[in-house]
Order: sequence, then C-alpha cells, then structure tokens
Amino acid sequence: MNRTPDFAARLERVRKAMANSGVDALLISLGADLPWLTGYWAMPLERLTMLVVPAAASEMPVLVVPELEAPRVKPVPEVFTVRPWAETESPVDIVASLVSGSTGAEPAIAVGDRTWAAFVLGLQAVLPRASWRRASLLTGPLRAVKDAAEVEALARVAASADRVAAQLLAGEIPLLGHSERAVSAEISRRLLAEGHQAVNFAIVASGPNAASPHHDATERVISDNEPVVCDFGGALDGYCSDITRTVFTGPPPAELAHVYEVVAAAQAAGVAAAQLGRPCSEVDRAARAVIEEAGYGRYFVHRTGHGIGLEEHEDPYMVIGNEEPLTAGNAFSVEPGIYVPGKWGVRIEDIVLSTPAGPERLNKADRALTIVGG
Amino acid sequence: MNRTPDFAARLERVRKAMANSGVDALLISLGADLPWLTGYWAMPLERLTMLVVPAAASEMPVLVVPELEAPRVKPVPEVFTVRPWAETESPVDIVASLVSGSTGAEPAIAVGDRTWAAFVLGLQAVLPRASWRRASLLTGPLRAVKDAAEVEALARVAASADRVAAQLLAGEIPLLGHSERAVSAEISRRLLAEGHQAVNFAIVASGPNAASPHHDATERVISDNEPVVCDFGGALDGYCSDITRTVFTGPPPAELAHVYEVVAAAQAAGVAAAQLGRPCSEVDRAARAVIEEAGYGRYFVHRTGHGIGLEEHEDPYMVIGNEEPLTAGNAFSVEPGIYVPGKWGVRIEDIVLSTPAGPERLNKADRALTIVGG
Repeated sequence: MNRTPDFAARLERVRKAMANSGVDALLISLGADLPWLTGYWAMPLERLTMLVVPAAASEMPVLVVPELEAPRVKPVPEVFTVRPWAETESPVDIVASLVSGSTGAEPAIAVGDRTWAAFVLGLQAVLPRASWRRASLLTGPLRAVKDAAEVEALARVAASADRVAAQLLAGEIPLLGHSERAVSAEISRRLLAEGHQAVNFAIVASGPNAASPHHDATERVISDNEPVVCDFGGALDGYCSDITRTVFTGPPPAELAHVYEVVAAAQAAGVAAAQLGRPCSEVDRAARAVIEEAGYGRYFVHRTGHGIGLEEHEDPYMVIGNEEPLTAGNAFSVEPGIYVPGKWGVRIEDIVLSTPAGPERLNKADRALTIVGG
Repeated sequence: MNRTPDFAARLERVRKAMANSGVDALLISLGADLPWLTGYWAMPLERLTMLVVPAAASEMPVLVVPELEAPRVKPVPEVFTVRPWAETESPVDIVASLVSGSTGAEPAIAVGDRTWAAFVLGLQAVLPRASWRRASLLTGPLRAVKDAAEVEALARVAASADRVAAQLLAGEIPLLGHSERAVSAEISRRLLAEGHQAVNFAIVASGPNAASPHHDATERVISDNEPVVCDFGGALDGYCSDITRTVFTGPPPAELAHVYEVVAAAQAAGVAAAQLGRPCSEVDRAARAVIEEAGYGRYFVHRTGHGIGLEEHEDPYMVIGNEEPLTAGNAFSVEPGIYVPGKWGVRIEDIVLSTPAGPERLNKADRALTIVGG
C-alpha cells in the first residue's frame, strides 16, 4: 500500500484477541502476520526472525532478528523494538527468555502457522510447560477483514492481472506451437510489465494437462483444438492477485463447450451466494450444486475458494465445513473447475469482495468462451 | 539432474540413520528432504503434503498429498505409494493413523525442519504421547555429502552464475545511473538467459546500502565512486548457485581498496582452510582471523558460509561452534564481508567443494578489485 497502515491499531486488535482467548504471548515468524503487524517480511531462511508480543499492553513487542538482517527493518517505534542476534547467540533462547520474562511459568503461547518446525521444537524444549496453539486462530479473522486501503490495493493488483487476462483473451499471447513453459514465462513477463512487483505463479495447463489443477508448466507444446487453463497471480505493494481463464485453441467439441458453460454458471452461482452473513460454505455449496446437477460432481476435486490479501491463500476459505459468516471486507477467490483425468479440464476464477451492497468481483476480464488464434 | 537419482539407495541410508537414532517414523513436508528422497517438491501452501517413512524396511513410505496436486507426483513405485486426500478429509488425521499403524503408542518421530507449525501442532494434538525431533538431525549429514551427479549439477549451475558475474566484471551490466532494482532485474534476466531455471535472489547493494548484508534492492540510483555488492543465485535442475562480487563505479578511496584486499585475503584463507577432516568452524576461524588482524573484526557480522545443494542454505554451516569435520562431497559457500554501517560494505563469495585433493572452487569468476564503467 502507498499509505502506511495503522500498525498500532492492528496491535491493539491482536491484543484484544489474545485477551479473549487467554493467550499470554504471540510468537510470529514467517508468513504475512508479521508484515501485517509491523511492515516487515522475515526472510524464509534458517536464521530465526520472530516477533514476541506479550499480552500486556504495557510491554512493547520485540522483534528478534538476525544481526545481518537488522538493517532491513524499518522501525515502527510505537509498535516494536528490535533485538538483533549475533551468529553465536541462540535466537530460540532469546525468544524463550522474552516469553518467560513477561508471563507465568505455564504460558499459553500462540505461534505463527508457518513458523518452521525446527524452531517450534526448539522453543518447546526450552519452554516445556507452555501450551501451544496456532496464531491464525487469532490473526486469521482479523486479517480476513480488509480495510479501505487494503481493498484499494487488492483492486489495483486485480486490475493489473485483468490486463494480462485481457491480452490472453484477445489472442495477444501466442499459444499454438509454444510450450506451456514459454507461455508461462510470457504471462509472467506481462504481469511485471502491467505493474506487478512479483509473480507468484503462472500455471499453463494444456490439453490433458488441464486436468491437473496445480499443474507445473512443462515443455509440452500447445496444439490446436485444446483447452488451455491459465491461472496466474503475483503481488503489488504486498497484496496478491489470482485469476484463472480457460481459453481454447480452436472450437471445442460439444461436451467440452457444455462443460465450459457449466463451470461459468457454477462460478456465477458461487459469486451470487457470497452475501453478507451467509456461511462461507454456502459459496462452495452453490457452485458445487451447479456442477453436480450437470453430472460432473466427482470431477470438481477442490474447494471453491480461498481468502486473499498479503498471502495468496488465507482466511476465509470457501469450503464445506467453514460455517463462519461472510463479513464486509472479506476478499476471496471463487474458482470452480471440472477436471476429467487424461482428457481435459476447465477452471474460471475471480477475486470477489464481500460488501454490504453484495458481492463485488475485483476481476472483470471477460468470462465468455473464447477461441484464440495462433 | 538429468539422471534420475537412486532414491531407493537414499531411502535405505535414511532408514539406517533412523535405526541408529531410534526414530520410529520420519515425517517430511516442505523443504528439500522430500525431493531428495522422492523427486517431488511439495507446494508451500496450506494443504498438507507429507511423506510418512516408517522405520521398518518392510513398510512402504506413503506420500500424503492433496488430491488436486496428486497429478503432479511422478511415481517412484519402489520408494513410496501415494495417498491423495480430498478437501473434506483431515490430512493430519491420515498421517497420524499411518504413524500409529506402524509404531508403538509412544513413537519417536522426526519431522521435517520446515514443516509448518500449524501441522506440527495438529500432529502433536492427535499423537499426544509421541516424542519429536527435527528431521535434519538425520537427513542433514546425508544430504551434505553430494554424489557425483550432484557435484556435476552444482558445477553446472555455478558456471552459469559465473557467466553473469563475468558480464558484471566486464562492465556489460550497466550500473551508473541505474537503480539497484533495475540492476537486480537485469542480473535475474541474465541468470535465466545463461541457463538458470529459477532466480532465488539478486541482491544489489550500493554505496551505504552495501553495509546491509541481506539488503533488498531499492530504487536508489547507483552513483560514481561507489562499491556495489552483487550477490545472486538460483537453480538449475534443482541445484542452487550463490555467488557474490563487489565491484566499484570508480576508483575506491585508499581505505576501501584496502578493505577489499582484506576481504579477498580472508576469502582465500577460508577456502584454503577447507581441508578434509578439519572442523567446519576452522573455515570460519581462518577467514575471520584475517579480518580481525586488519582491525575490522566487529564489522564481519555473519558466519563465513553455508552448505548448498537442493537448498540455498543447508548443512554444513561454516560457523564457530560447528565442529563437524569436512567430508569429501561437502559443498558450501565461503563469503566473508566487512560492513561499516552508514558507509559501505564489501563481500566476496564462491561455492567450494571439499575433495580428497583439497578444496575446489566451483565459482571461477575473477576476484581482483574491478572498476566498472557506466
């Protein structure tokens, strides 16, 4: 974001959540909880970076960071202090002593979901009487509600991805005779050219490969009369994009054209179901019902969507079993698909924002069946 | 690698290590242990992928993988079977039941170092009587000894990085008047053009920014008469490169030129100390001694090196306290630096292979002080 977030306000909300759930200390390492709270992204390396947040508002959180990375930290003096550690120190011991110094002997600790096991086990060894839970129980619901600046950032990065999707649909990205890998590289290049600062993934899955939802682009050369699933995303000012369009290198056979319309209808039904106060699971159920009624239920092998923000996948998840109600400011994907192994696959995905006026698609690229030339 | 590794032989060595340390089950998720054992890289997402390796050679390891990612798995039938899980199943419960089915009630479990805390805590909840340790205690020493094909892959990716370093030293990469970020993007582009399949990082740290060892490239425009630390690496056939050269956009002042020679001498001393059977710490001590004798000890704020292979940083670490002896097939960086906050920094890094004939640099790009033009 261009404006600096109100980190102090976020800290206050986190501390309220800690108090409500009886957590004495919050330990945040890899993942987006840390930048959401401090603006700082830890490096995903073997040297521990960890923010220690004591429950008491009177105690300042401490960012334990490798000495050689301390110059990367942009201070936010009202939110945390920095404790650089030298190569011959034990960061686990430093964190443990900060926890012990501000809690009782049997602290209830919430630890960041993506913290490496090596550090969790190390902390458990030196804090043997602590109890442990994952931090997303506290931070997930907070991060799932985007404020105005975050919504703006998500809209901006979605528009950037939309421009690349529009180029794909207009036939400006050569497919026929090119390898999936080459097309993936070209989509990545265009995302950067259209304003993305990072590309997180660019799935290009053609012909039978389209039946693999998380396909890695290969050297397979795209032929004519094939579906090509293009699912790509990245980040701009920290916030993520994620869009899928399935295009065809020639008129699809009748069944495949029908399947495309089924997926498009399922996607529209999922979006329409995303009304405030309704459970997240209903978005999944609405999209799935359309596919099941068409007889393809067993070929829709994944949930309908995931939250998005500083991370590509975060709360709230649009999945059977998630009965949390949709809240204004929730941003998430709606991305049903049908995948017939050995034959083909189709997926359509947009990012959707939950608002009092109803669901709003942040991705606006065309969803009509599109045949692209060479 | 172009040849398929002998995964069955690796599994046998892992099981021998498990037997030696009394581990009943090994649980491998994110990180390079999994591809080293199976050829498969798990996606770093919220759906659990985990290889369950029971101690008994009679029991086949099982790869628990999200159903939508199962098509990505290339089977290695003699090493593992695949257990895809559907969106409404609990992968943690599946892993726990596989562990319980093949061990006693109080299993000793080794879990991959980079496994997410969320999964570790979930597994601990359903396996309350298990004991836990990190998997790298078993896999680290095995992966640290590279076989012939791995050495070949490391040499190939190092040569690719060397070609970009040579272009930098020859002044073919414009620096003067360009932002660090633009130079970083150009280095990344050239790594791919020279054969890398992925760029993992491209640090460009100019002038006072050079004092930040893990600096993120910024919009700062490179001026004349500055040091520019360029530290970059990526992967080819899964194996990683990592090289640093510090160049100057004009003749450095006498002290900085002297510091450069000190760092070059320290780097040479570190490489020379990497003799078979000597402790890893001696590589650090040898490099550090040169810098300390020159009076810059307090400005060398990191260890001298890290192992490299399928991961950028892995065992063995060249750091005070690591008394493990160097073994033939160890591959690691030697990268001393001097960083004076607010002023400048210098670092020189090569990847070195430990061999019976002595240390062998895999990076051969020139290390002489180089002034590059515009």
